[in-house]
Amino acid sequence: MTPTDPAPDRDPAPESDGTRPPTTRRRRPGGRTARIRTQVLDAVLGELGEHGYDGLTMDAVAARSGVHRTTVYRRWGDVGGLLADVLDAAGDDDWEPPDTGSLEGDLAALNQEIQAALTAEPPIVTALIAASFRSEKAADAQQRLWEDRYARCEIIVGRAVRRDELPPRTDARRLLVAATAPLYHELVLLRTPPDPHLPACAARTAALAATAGAFTEPPSASDR
Amino acid sequence: MTPTDPAPDRDPAPESDGTRPPTTRRRRPGGRTARIRTQVLDAVLGELGEHGYDGLTMDAVAARSGVHRTTVYRRWGDVGGLLADVLDAAGDDDWEPPDTGSLEGDLAALNQEIQAALTAEPPIVTALIAASFRSEKAADAQQRLWEDRYARCEIIVGRAVRRDELPPRTDARRLLVAATAPLYHELVLLRTPPDPHLPACAARTAALAATAGAFTEPPSASDR
Repeated sequence: MTPTDPAPDRDPAPESDGTRPPTTRRRRPGGRTARIRTQVLDAVLGELGEHGYDGLTMDAVAARSGVHRTTVYRRWGDVGGLLADVLDAAGDDDWEPPDTGSLEGDLAALNQEIQAALTAEPPIVTALIAASFRSEKAADAQQRLWEDRYARCEIIVGRAVRRDELPPRTDARRLLVAATAPLYHELVLLRTPPDPHLPACAARTAALAATAGAFTEPPSASDR
Repeated sequence: MTPTDPAPDRDPAPESDGTRPPTTRRRRPGGRTARIRTQVLDAVLGELGEHGYDGLTMDAVAARSGVHRTTVYRRWGDVGGLLADVLDAAGDDDWEPPDTGSLEGDLAALNQEIQAALTAEPPIVTALIAASFRSEKAADAQQRLWEDRYARCEIIVGRAVRRDELPPRTDARRLLVAATAPLYHELVLLRTPPDPHLPACAARTAALAATAGAFTEPPSASDR
């Protein structure tokens, strides 16, 4: 993944990060800080993938990252802080949902991405979800990440409305949750083996229901 | 709950449960064993509701139950064993899914039960789900419980087929997962506040999709 490298400096000041000898002091703002963050978060992912939450300790992350443990404790506080920052960093990207030209196609492609993430080896995503049941900080960050992802996916529904595939007042979030929830339910909670048909089947179910007006707002009028 | 097995009286000493003096030796088979199990599992639920998984210890359960700790360790082994037995006991009932006269009504009533369980105080059900991410024994038992519940719910789909609400070859499990998954997803994973419309809305979505043939077998023919 990213450079690790040893932890040479043990500068006296507690603020020192002690990672690599900077060629110049006061480089571009955030350069060294960002590099250390990358090293540490990569180490968290490595430890989590190999040992799961139970094997994740501040000292193991510090050792694996090559960043001085004082720095790791000072900046991230505890394992929950590390996990929260991993999740925040994961959301700090330019990911966009698939654009296949149809609602069902977009949802199926999205579900394929979700199923791939939930069945990847090492099981980073499922380990992070499991960790969110152990740490409030991780839970809050996981929630932020998911809400951000669902917000980004609303464009799928907007495009479908513009293509006249859906009624204008379609509740995007409900539709997206209906399309994706069966994957999380089967793979994370029920722990059933991955079903290669499920991403497309769940997408088709949600698209059929949406076309039939299941997600048309306002819910108070359309739901019993 | 149900009686378990004999293996009751091994008095005295390490096997002694030290709970209450049995009025007679060798009562009906399993009476004392079943009573001890009830006391211990009730204590697990009490501790879990008050302190969550992190506060759950063998010793606290023994103290709360009034059963000798030696017995608790001998019979349940560890916290995972206690949780697994709580989950197994929860499935050992005569629960049947609601029968309202319509597919959508049955699914909505089922979802109301699920939402009530997932939002109850103390949060026993969510604590057990969280615990299933910490203990393989609990995870296996949680999986058994859910699979049993989904199997019992298949009668909802069977009744709907007999009422000609659904095509005969409807995949009951997929339909049931589609109907219920959004509740688990929102309340357990996304941790959104309970939405009073969600049980009915998710039921309606699944019923609309089912009526449109979304769950008609075989999936290989009906899915892309």
